[in-house]
Amino acid sequence: MKILILGGDGYLGWPTAMDMAAKGHEVCVMDNYLRRNMAQETCSEALIPMPNLHERARIFAAESGKTIDVVIGDCADYRVLERVVRDFAPEALIHYAEQPSGPYSMRGFDEAKRTFDNNLGATFNVIWAVKEHVPDCHIIKLGTMGEYGTPNIDIEEGWLNVEHKGRQQKFLYPRQAGTLYHTTKVLDTDLLWFYVRTYGLRVTDLMQGPVYGLSTEQSDINQQLLPNFHYDDIFGTAVNRFLVQAVAGVPLTVYGKGGQTRGYLNIRDTLQCVSLAMETPVEKGKLRILNQFTEQFSVNELAERISRVGNAMGLNVTVESIDNPRKEPEEHYYNAIHSGLLDLGLEPHYMTDDVIASMLEQVMTYRDHIDVRKIMPRVRWK
Amino acid sequence: MKILILGGDGYLGWPTAMDMAAKGHEVCVMDNYLRRNMAQETCSEALIPMPNLHERARIFAAESGKTIDVVIGDCADYRVLERVVRDFAPEALIHYAEQPSGPYSMRGFDEAKRTFDNNLGATFNVIWAVKEHVPDCHIIKLGTMGEYGTPNIDIEEGWLNVEHKGRQQKFLYPRQAGTLYHTTKVLDTDLLWFYVRTYGLRVTDLMQGPVYGLSTEQSDINQQLLPNFHYDDIFGTAVNRFLVQAVAGVPLTVYGKGGQTRGYLNIRDTLQCVSLAMETPVEKGKLRILNQFTEQFSVNELAERISRVGNAMGLNVTVESIDNPRKEPEEHYYNAIHSGLLDLGLEPHYMTDDVIASMLEQVMTYRDHIDVRKIMPRVRWK
Repeated sequence: MKILILGGDGYLGWPTAMDMAAKGHEVCVMDNYLRRNMAQETCSEALIPMPNLHERARIFAAESGKTIDVVIGDCADYRVLERVVRDFAPEALIHYAEQPSGPYSMRGFDEAKRTFDNNLGATFNVIWAVKEHVPDCHIIKLGTMGEYGTPNIDIEEGWLNVEHKGRQQKFLYPRQAGTLYHTTKVLDTDLLWFYVRTYGLRVTDLMQGPVYGLSTEQSDINQQLLPNFHYDDIFGTAVNRFLVQAVAGVPLTVYGKGGQTRGYLNIRDTLQCVSLAMETPVEKGKLRILNQFTEQFSVNELAERISRVGNAMGLNVTVESIDNPRKEPEEHYYNAIHSGLLDLGLEPHYMTDDVIASMLEQVMTYRDHIDVRKIMPRVRWK
Repeated sequence: MKILILGGDGYLGWPTAMDMAAKGHEVCVMDNYLRRNMAQETCSEALIPMPNLHERARIFAAESGKTIDVVIGDCADYRVLERVVRDFAPEALIHYAEQPSGPYSMRGFDEAKRTFDNNLGATFNVIWAVKEHVPDCHIIKLGTMGEYGTPNIDIEEGWLNVEHKGRQQKFLYPRQAGTLYHTTKVLDTDLLWFYVRTYGLRVTDLMQGPVYGLSTEQSDINQQLLPNFHYDDIFGTAVNRFLVQAVAGVPLTVYGKGGQTRGYLNIRDTLQCVSLAMETPVEKGKLRILNQFTEQFSVNELAERISRVGNAMGLNVTVESIDNPRKEPEEHYYNAIHSGLLDLGLEPHYMTDDVIASMLEQVMTYRDHIDVRKIMPRVRWK
């Protein structure tokens, strides 16, 4: 199958590209190094330096014998994206090409504008390039569980049946997010849904929770093929920050009360989910929404698990609460349905103590690279 | 009070400017003639040629002794808008600066992109310019009843209390629109709501139905001050097209079955509503949503009324159904709550036979300008 992966230099884009190529698909990746540039500009470089995309494709080809085509270009520039879509004519398009950091999007006007223009611009262009040139192509879009926010009712998978004054209507589940980045994904979904129902596109929107994990089957071939690992306050997740703090011997910093609960998943399960979505394309005119995570934790539970495993390994791990730089509920109801991907065959890799220990060991290999100044919050939106 | 009106050259922007100036407010209007240019490009010029904005402000000043400041500039260009907001320091900002045509937004990529970039770009910039320079300013944003679409349950005023599996949550009312233009307003509202709750802006979003009427108290001073009157398929409303068809002696063209039902209002009531919203600013951190219309009609009812009144005036008016160029339900449930503005004191001007007769008479004055080729649908999105 011909697969175009937008944002192919990213934490998920590159492992997805290798996974798809290893399965025998014809893979083209496109990226404009936006995240690399933003990380450099904000002093938020990844823990493990990574070769550029051309170089990584060359290493992967040498190791595996599989080719990945690389295009360096901006998906938010229609002329560029249109040419790639027209010439490559993908049967599936996996759209990861978004500025992925909540804190970055909350820094100020320039960062907000860049996030808004890149994310909505890329999605708008994906819609039109597919509509004009490959209308049967299955668009697989990475949304985020963050679109839903933390409502006081169960989070359903994309749609909500509402009964009101004795009448009924099925709506796209109402979403309200906590950062501008997450809000751009709310708008992405609304835009996709408009064009799906109007022009008969076929789209799967994967509402993904925070992903963890430093290794996948293909990346383990060669350390130069590892996923990007950000542990800073801007591009890092809570899991990554905690792993690095545990290794660096500084307290794990919980934002506020730590009751913030989210659905998490292992990067190996992201690869499974994207594959499962691709192998079961939706019909034309349908927007399929799947909640992509395997288990829910609060930030306090995460800190407790990582400190327990770290201490058992001989690290000296403590936990402390710091003033929350974000505007978010720190204690709330959270129950999100996530049966769609299990029904498609997902076999979860849970965050066991062994998994945590193996992540800590990988981080310990790069202990000398850690700069703890990058971890404390530099962006506040309260 | 210092009032900045964005989109001040428009059908509603200009009458609002005169109304506010006549009431003694200090008024600045800003516009980049986007709609004039698009109308020219698509051969959709208004029935009555209008002087440019500087010229209209000069005529109005000569007639009334009231000054309206004019800035020609693009609200989607942050540097331009920021300078105006910073220097003028408005206490209320009325945001009409959007590409207002559904059919235009459905013509093709270029028109869709232009609509998207202008509308979201202007709203994004309004948010930031206000947040940075006049955080207490009351933003009054023109949304549209079209954001809601035609759900099978009652349309509430902006918010919906959902009970689900024994728990409750109040959501922004879920909206899904029928054109890209209306969808940009759905996204506008989501974006405003994010920044309102995050940064404590104060915003009123007026969900307005189709507006009719060729005259307001101030425009009646001088024919050169009349609101723009578009009757073409792109910028004209169903009411305007029917009035012109009745005068031109061609059948009123109902799209499909004609059961499409919407909430309508007189342009004089738009002026009242915007004033009422301005005189009762919301508190900071609140998004107030008001459904702005006074009565509901189906397209068939509109055609019936206009043909009945036209025939009584001696015109020869017939009605015919044509193939619907749009993708929309032609028969549907529709019941929209609209008590908020009545509670604030709105005194409606309904679409009586006298009102219809007076609109027909005004159109008859410009009978020689009518080009019936502009009326039939030129854009299809089915």
